[in-house]
Amino acid sequence: MKENTNPDAPITYTRIGTIRSPFTDVAGMPIQPTGARVVKGTVEIFEEYAEGLCDLDGFSRIILIYAFHRSGSYDLKIIPFLDTTARGVFATRAPKRPNPIGLSVVRLIGVEGRTLIIEDIDILDGTPLLDIKPYVPAFDAYPDASCGWLETAAHGAESFRSDERFR
Amino acid sequence: MKENTNPDAPITYTRIGTIRSPFTDVAGMPIQPTGARVVKGTVEIFEEYAEGLCDLDGFSRIILIYAFHRSGSYDLKIIPFLDTTARGVFATRAPKRPNPIGLSVVRLIGVEGRTLIIEDIDILDGTPLLDIKPYVPAFDAYPDASCGWLETAAHGAESFRSDERFR
Repeated sequence: MKENTNPDAPITYTRIGTIRSPFTDVAGMPIQPTGARVVKGTVEIFEEYAEGLCDLDGFSRIILIYAFHRSGSYDLKIIPFLDTTARGVFATRAPKRPNPIGLSVVRLIGVEGRTLIIEDIDILDGTPLLDIKPYVPAFDAYPDASCGWLETAAHGAESFRSDERFR
Repeated sequence: MKENTNPDAPITYTRIGTIRSPFTDVAGMPIQPTGARVVKGTVEIFEEYAEGLCDLDGFSRIILIYAFHRSGSYDLKIIPFLDTTARGVFATRAPKRPNPIGLSVVRLIGVEGRTLIIEDIDILDGTPLLDIKPYVPAFDAYPDASCGWLETAAHGAESFRSDERFR
């Protein structure tokens, strides 16, 4: 495992809320939203940001950007959940990465005050939220994109559950 | 404009590389990759992270996560490029947000050493790169998602160009 030693100036963000889910431990979690179709959770936004949620309720999906807060170190090549071969970390969605930033496209069921009701979540309970973006098919949906080593493996994500590898 | 005053502990990331594009000024830029179909650029990864690019070349699209480095302040409600009504910032893709993190799905043309050749970029030259993730349709493509106020406006993104609003 390497520590991040890049000398460039740090880029600093702040938690804007907290993601709540049934997953209190990394082991046993779905590894992608496609494996979490029945899983409900919430996003609780801090009061000072609540006004920014206006108009979000018209979107059926949203992009959550969050901190992988349990991922303090990383390797540049790892054996991902869906494979048996070491892959470059940037060709995987593994949580332990040089900058441990997570991204999930989840289903937005409703907005109640400063709480979002969401489904299809694959995120650990207590995860610090950094940003919410509306999911816009014209910008974000490329159903025909080819996906390298994941081309066949990705389908396994629906049933695969996390183990202790990235705990 | 508000400064970010959330008292929670800061979450710190480091630049892992730099995005190079023809866009040296915010004004005149395409506002989404759909408006940048012929625009080529590169991503230059720092040497210490180069090994993590292994296996990325099999993916036709990648997700770039980067810092909106020119966005120092924000409003919770803004009039976005594609509308005339103020919207909650989290229901827009505007660069000035509580945590100025950008996300673009770009086309990966090739990998040459630690340089990625990319197309469909809507990103300012010199932008600090934070993360690269493979775009996986099974996880990321929801072509039928509904998109609120952007439902009709999103199509305008193909021809719309940025102005000075978010400079």
